[in-house]
Amino acid sequence: MSGNTIGTLFTVTNFGESHGPAIGCVIDGCPPGMALTEADIQGDLDRRRPGTSRHVTQRNEPDAVEILSGVYEGKTTGTPIALLIRNTDQRSKDYSAIAQSFRPGHADYTYWHKYGIRDPRGGGRSSARMTAPTVAAGAVAKKWLREQFGAEFRACMTQLGELPMPFESWEHVPHNPFFAPCADVAAFEDYMDRLRKAGDSCGARIRVQATGVPVGLGEPLYDKLDADIAYAMMGLNAVKGVEIGAGFASVAQRGTVHGDSMSPEGFRSNNAGGILGGISTGQDIEVSIAIKPTSSIISPRESIDVHGQSQEVITKGRHDPCVGIRAAPIAEALLALVVMDHALRHRAQCADVRVPVGPIPASA
Amino acid sequence: MSGNTIGTLFTVTNFGESHGPAIGCVIDGCPPGMALTEADIQGDLDRRRPGTSRHVTQRNEPDAVEILSGVYEGKTTGTPIALLIRNTDQRSKDYSAIAQSFRPGHADYTYWHKYGIRDPRGGGRSSARMTAPTVAAGAVAKKWLREQFGAEFRACMTQLGELPMPFESWEHVPHNPFFAPCADVAAFEDYMDRLRKAGDSCGARIRVQATGVPVGLGEPLYDKLDADIAYAMMGLNAVKGVEIGAGFASVAQRGTVHGDSMSPEGFRSNNAGGILGGISTGQDIEVSIAIKPTSSIISPRESIDVHGQSQEVITKGRHDPCVGIRAAPIAEALLALVVMDHALRHRAQCADVRVPVGPIPASA
Amino acid sequence: MSGNTIGTLFTVTNFGESHGPAIGCVIDGCPPGMALTEADIQGDLDRRRPGTSRHVTQRNEPDAVEILSGVYEGKTTGTPIALLIRNTDQRSKDYSAIAQSFRPGHADYTYWHKYGIRDPRGGGRSSARMTAPTVAAGAVAKKWLREQFGAEFRACMTQLGELPMPFESWEHVPHNPFFAPCADVAAFEDYMDRLRKAGDSCGARIRVQATGVPVGLGEPLYDKLDADIAYAMMGLNAVKGVEIGAGFASVAQRGTVHGDSMSPEGFRSNNAGGILGGISTGQDIEVSIAIKPTSSIISPRESIDVHGQSQEVITKGRHDPCVGIRAAPIAEALLALVVMDHALRHRAQCADVRVPVGPIPASA
Amino acid sequence: MSGNTIGTLFTVTNFGESHGPAIGCVIDGCPPGMALTEADIQGDLDRRRPGTSRHVTQRNEPDAVEILSGVYEGKTTGTPIALLIRNTDQRSKDYSAIAQSFRPGHADYTYWHKYGIRDPRGGGRSSARMTAPTVAAGAVAKKWLREQFGAEFRACMTQLGELPMPFESWEHVPHNPFFAPCADVAAFEDYMDRLRKAGDSCGARIRVQATGVPVGLGEPLYDKLDADIAYAMMGLNAVKGVEIGAGFASVAQRGTVHGDSMSPEGFRSNNAGGILGGISTGQDIEVSIAIKPTSSIISPRESIDVHGQSQEVITKGRHDPCVGIRAAPIAEALLALVVMDHALRHRAQCADVRVPVGPIPASA
Repeated sequence: MSGNTIGTLFTVTNFGESHGPAIGCVIDGCPPGMALTEADIQGDLDRRRPGTSRHVTQRNEPDAVEILSGVYEGKTTGTPIALLIRNTDQRSKDYSAIAQSFRPGHADYTYWHKYGIRDPRGGGRSSARMTAPTVAAGAVAKKWLREQFGAEFRACMTQLGELPMPFESWEHVPHNPFFAPCADVAAFEDYMDRLRKAGDSCGARIRVQATGVPVGLGEPLYDKLDADIAYAMMGLNAVKGVEIGAGFASVAQRGTVHGDSMSPEGFRSNNAGGILGGISTGQDIEVSIAIKPTSSIISPRESIDVHGQSQEVITKGRHDPCVGIRAAPIAEALLALVVMDHALRHRAQCADVRVPVGPIPASA
Repeated sequence: MSGNTIGTLFTVTNFGESHGPAIGCVIDGCPPGMALTEADIQGDLDRRRPGTSRHVTQRNEPDAVEILSGVYEGKTTGTPIALLIRNTDQRSKDYSAIAQSFRPGHADYTYWHKYGIRDPRGGGRSSARMTAPTVAAGAVAKKWLREQFGAEFRACMTQLGELPMPFESWEHVPHNPFFAPCADVAAFEDYMDRLRKAGDSCGARIRVQATGVPVGLGEPLYDKLDADIAYAMMGLNAVKGVEIGAGFASVAQRGTVHGDSMSPEGFRSNNAGGILGGISTGQDIEVSIAIKPTSSIISPRESIDVHGQSQEVITKGRHDPCVGIRAAPIAEALLALVVMDHALRHRAQCADVRVPVGPIPASA
Repeated sequence: MSGNTIGTLFTVTNFGESHGPAIGCVIDGCPPGMALTEADIQGDLDRRRPGTSRHVTQRNEPDAVEILSGVYEGKTTGTPIALLIRNTDQRSKDYSAIAQSFRPGHADYTYWHKYGIRDPRGGGRSSARMTAPTVAAGAVAKKWLREQFGAEFRACMTQLGELPMPFESWEHVPHNPFFAPCADVAAFEDYMDRLRKAGDSCGARIRVQATGVPVGLGEPLYDKLDADIAYAMMGLNAVKGVEIGAGFASVAQRGTVHGDSMSPEGFRSNNAGGILGGISTGQDIEVSIAIKPTSSIISPRESIDVHGQSQEVITKGRHDPCVGIRAAPIAEALLALVVMDHALRHRAQCADVRVPVGPIPASA
Repeated sequence: MSGNTIGTLFTVTNFGESHGPAIGCVIDGCPPGMALTEADIQGDLDRRRPGTSRHVTQRNEPDAVEILSGVYEGKTTGTPIALLIRNTDQRSKDYSAIAQSFRPGHADYTYWHKYGIRDPRGGGRSSARMTAPTVAAGAVAKKWLREQFGAEFRACMTQLGELPMPFESWEHVPHNPFFAPCADVAAFEDYMDRLRKAGDSCGARIRVQATGVPVGLGEPLYDKLDADIAYAMMGLNAVKGVEIGAGFASVAQRGTVHGDSMSPEGFRSNNAGGILGGISTGQDIEVSIAIKPTSSIISPRESIDVHGQSQEVITKGRHDPCVGIRAAPIAEALLALVVMDHALRHRAQCADVRVPVGPIPASA
């Protein structure tokens, strides 16, 4: 109940600190009989990995995952799957200065007040490094959902700081350092170079999409599919906003426009983002998240120390000038974890429901 | 696990349908010894109640709450508090037509596919009427938080359809039918009148604020305070977006601007919305939500029936042309429920933490 | 988390006090599409009802159950099923004396210390009356398990005070006031009459059995089927011991005897009580519970008051001289709730498992 | 929800298989600021460790625990504490024979039917080896409860097969291989030697006691302290019965005897076993458990293979002829985990309760 577990039937319990010996998670509730090896997981970890371009932190870790349990002769057994990632590049340095003051925009202040003790090494528990086990667990969920439903999860950046990114095609996403859905990223490269030189940071907007999710997932009243997606996304470091479907734009829409009409050929639009009444419609699930600018910047900031005294803070070390850049694979993983959990919850209660489900095409 | 319970330590289990005999909830985990009567709850129910102006549904129900348990001689005993609200204005009518087709933008389609059966009377379980027990439970949480910490919860509208509402003062909110924070609402009255005549509906943006919440509430890694707020808000009927603090505007902010600097006099700003690393800072908690236009509109819509055949749907009955209008007290209640739950969670683990907490003034 | 909910997927949240306006529960997670009316529930409530013989409390309540939600046109909809039972025979009397002292063997002392406040009317929340909603919820679970698997639940008394009851046949159980599995209960009638005259009370041993439970239910490591049965049974008022299968007798058994051998015709015995490694074998589930003598007795007892001063306590009022007598239908209900919950949990994770399951006859 | 987590606020998530690379657990919810090193945990692991006498399995593993997270500079930080124990003596051998048949009394049959796949190596997940992480987590709970309340946990054997063990003193327990509370264990040594030669096994009865537990822990209605103790104990491998206080003996007691009377000097007896109405009284908590004879015996047993064909099974390998011998430290750990969880649950809801609690001496 200390909040380090996500999910109710497909649960992921996350542990570790940025500079401790290891990080990892325990996945409980994975259906038995699915083929699974480290290779199924490593790919997504590599996509999240730091050090892959000059635009992200230069911390260099292989993030090699080890499966400790729950798999026998290459198949899941239905027992807990423990995943371990050893920390290998936690540089020794003097943390005494940082331990005594609070970096603006960071969790330093709140951890210290909540727990009365704080692991200051690399942000400790509040480090974005803790998303690695989430990504690893997400890879397991993705695999099951792909095999079960043909579901796929993908994410891309749609805005970098002030610069909107034109959506051209999902094809471009793996071919540039920004997870950008467009061919030409020169302007973004330039933007980031200038930002880095200025010792500053910027935010990003990420679009996340799931295709192939069957109709019927989500538990009203409170545990709606969109509610749990919002929970998962807002719980990701640096996220300050979450939208489903038309999101905030729906405020200015009229009811005659927003409500997606239906025809025998399927839904005519997808303002709902694939969720109605908290339950999936079978259309693509569309999510958008706002990621704030990195708080760890080299520019001096006004702050206080643990005694409440005024103190100027400069955050050195290896940091992402835009944490949003590496957020795409993490957001995919979170969406997959939520959908996976609801897939199991749905069949627990409704496995016997037999409704003739016709083709439900996505909107044009 | 069918999703009708919110909270982990202060839990609210919601039951009922729009046109069944009664709706209500069971609150479990309320601390003992707090004075509580129906009068403490009725006020917030009255603020949410339909039929109070021409701009909301004309369904007319007193929504009188009855405390069935958990209170002895006017004080909570620590045992479950069951709250009952009898439905009194569920008009008898023929639902056979609506039962066979799916209203666009509604949960009809998804409930039918999920459960294979659907209570069509007034939206059944998916009706906004189910927010009444949430409001009732929120009133209990608010009272405890007020007495314990001096915390207060309030909400107002900040946008109605295309029209932004200027924030002038919280004082105005109770004095107009829109929960508008401004003195002159003539333009909004006019806007709504025209919309209603056109048989259409619009969305709204609501701002929710909590003051007096102590530092330290929230459970990283996953059950962050902002994550649980996003869950609660996105789970509210018609909500399509949630922001904390600067929200989506933070995408275009620089790190030098966004990260709220600190001084011995307190935080210099509140882009964080009162939450850092998922834990409350002691500043005001600031939340903003997007509410889609009402799906129940009198204008004819293209849809299908349960056999997949084309069908035109017109939604008659008594409906809110902007469900956002009555959302303010509900959003307050949801925020209070989340804060209450985290207040109990915090002291479970950290009751012994003794950190010298100085004054933490809100940003100017 | 205040412990008034049993189950994880098929959850029952219980509320009420002995002398409050009403008691009841909310069942969440019931599969949709099952026919259900009050009549399906009332039968078990009537079996538990007080006032049916001179050997139980003379409190006389119809315990009429009302379904408030979750059922539409006679079928469950998959939404929460709220059940309400109005208290009708809570006699007005002066509780000031009892409120100031602690009855030996009762929860008075602990409730007062835990909560600092205590509803003394009829035992308040700790009254055995609170088992009525449990029985009502159990009836719903039983119905689903019967229709789904042909499972049946039954219980009988096997010992009354010092007197063992010979097991002759389940047939006898409904035909005597003791739920005794034997034809001649004259000795037990006589025993109870003498006990009542002496102002004393006695304990009982109850056997509970489930037949037709499929193989595979139960979640190791911790949430084993037998673990959850033990939890449910020990949580029943006055229970001090729980056995599965051979129970305490297994201590003196040899491994060559205890381990139930298997043949193509099935298991040769059932020392396991139908559970191996925490998972059901498909054999009958066999449980035995010890119920302590009623604490509410008319004989004077040494005790203290809330100020720690010596005080003699006599418990007047209408009490069961052997609470074990009415325990049979409650124990059945608890076993059904646990099996139901595990049936849903099992299919959440293992719905795809296809093992050729041959006939598994019970032991001779 | 696959049942590998125990606790609600102090949660322990257990992972691993007998012959996989490692076993371990993640503890979530431990209060921050408690001094903790591996040495605090290793002692209890050593007490549970195999290979310490000729009466237990000769598998020889150091069971060295590694703390992976949640501790900074020797103190708990309030974040998850991951504990890892590498498997070091999992002998390579051919498991193909055992994989095709079901050992009587074992979980083979049920795992195979539940999951459709089974790790047969050393019992896989159902091995008693999985109790090691439970013991490790219990050591953390014990330490906190000792420092917070002065609570202590201890267990001893009270019956070995047919032989009762006289209770002389807790002092004797650490000084013999049986956790026997008596000075002379020659008869038990002899008994075990004969049993081992006969290729057979026997059961045991274990008494578990907690002292120093404060009044008020336990959550009625369902999550009573005794209910959760019964759950934890019955979930331990091979346990078939659980008693609290007078247990099954209470059936034959009279109410005038059973109900522990109170005086200004304290309770006069402890038939309740320290729990009334599901809430701790402040007296010693007394639990007794029945452990069945080991199912892994060298004597040939009648069984079937996975195709339902008749097959004789002999269980070779290194096994405990009485698994009850090593159960004492495990039972202590389980009791500590339950009490710890309820200590946190109690203060979540009732931290503000201030009742003048006088001295509550244990019964004579």
